[in-house]
Amino acid sequence: MKIPRPLTRVIEAFEKLPGIGPKTAQRLTYYLLHIPQDELEIFARALVNLKKDTLLCKVCRNVSESDPCPICSDSSRDSTLLLVLEQPYEILSFERTGKFKGLYHVLHGSINPLDNIGPDELYIEDLIKRTKKKENGFRELIIATNPTMEGEATAMFLHKKIKIVNPKLKITRLGMGIPTGADLEYADEVTLREAIAGRREM
Amino acid sequence: MKIPRPLTRVIEAFEKLPGIGPKTAQRLTYYLLHIPQDELEIFARALVNLKKDTLLCKVCRNVSESDPCPICSDSSRDSTLLLVLEQPYEILSFERTGKFKGLYHVLHGSINPLDNIGPDELYIEDLIKRTKKKENGFRELIIATNPTMEGEATAMFLHKKIKIVNPKLKITRLGMGIPTGADLEYADEVTLREAIAGRREM
Repeated sequence: MKIPRPLTRVIEAFEKLPGIGPKTAQRLTYYLLHIPQDELEIFARALVNLKKDTLLCKVCRNVSESDPCPICSDSSRDSTLLLVLEQPYEILSFERTGKFKGLYHVLHGSINPLDNIGPDELYIEDLIKRTKKKENGFRELIIATNPTMEGEATAMFLHKKIKIVNPKLKITRLGMGIPTGADLEYADEVTLREAIAGRREM
Repeated sequence: MKIPRPLTRVIEAFEKLPGIGPKTAQRLTYYLLHIPQDELEIFARALVNLKKDTLLCKVCRNVSESDPCPICSDSSRDSTLLLVLEQPYEILSFERTGKFKGLYHVLHGSINPLDNIGPDELYIEDLIKRTKKKENGFRELIIATNPTMEGEATAMFLHKKIKIVNPKLKITRLGMGIPTGADLEYADEVTLREAIAGRREM
């Protein structure tokens, strides 16, 4: 017995998503057989309109419905601070802290030669131009790429390039160490070394 | 900052699926922003047509494009053997074994009073009618509901009901014990007890 074609089409679509294997794709598809047709149509419409109704903000490259995005057009934010991120959804995490009131710049990835992603595949040129313009008045650039090999390489690349076009700009990286609630026993040695180096007076 | 509406619509649709939480739904949605529009439309079309292009076989209640389904209309199969399952996708597992050549009956769930699923919410009446008809010529009924509380309760309910309408029908349950490749050290005591009770001569 073969799975009917209408089902395999949905299974194949799910399988293309990251972290969804053949078994999960099958389980999700058979689950959808039990939901009402109008909910399936709402899901389908949302997929079709996902990219049609959004764009990338020309200033910060965040995903948005308007250009410039609500953050870039918010005059109450501190326009002297610029935080660089790999992915648009990471903005949400920083916004939730309530501690960052500056502007963002989204690279949409990190430099990864193994995946053929070089600086030209990311919004790095935009960032360099943005920091070069004196009228933008940035005081500090926080490079918040991930603490992975690719994220660190991207941070180093950005640091080198931006120091050339704007030597006076202060460039920082997020503090590293033990995350809140973590167990010292299970902390890896690299993290512990960073925590010792970054120790603070009480 | 709020997530743009076109994204939250897709996130909400994903969140309704079993095993997909808010974080995964968000990750999948942002991933979809990077795939071509025509792939999104293929996904959407597959969803809309999922239920339109399929039906439940009137004989066995399997999901199919034709009625009766390819298995029920295959005259080379052993029509004296009937295997009862909870879900349509479980048929695939039995077909892959190559060891079962009989017919199936899909209940579409198991009796679960906590979820308000009683015998009337399942295709149990159909099964009772099917086994009652002498001209169907069933020799054996294998109840292959899951070895869970609900599956066992369903099996016991079916056994009782079918014995009334067809007292001579042989009713069996799948063999229980240690699964292939399992580690005895980690086998739970209920499974071990079943394995001892079901031991076979070498």
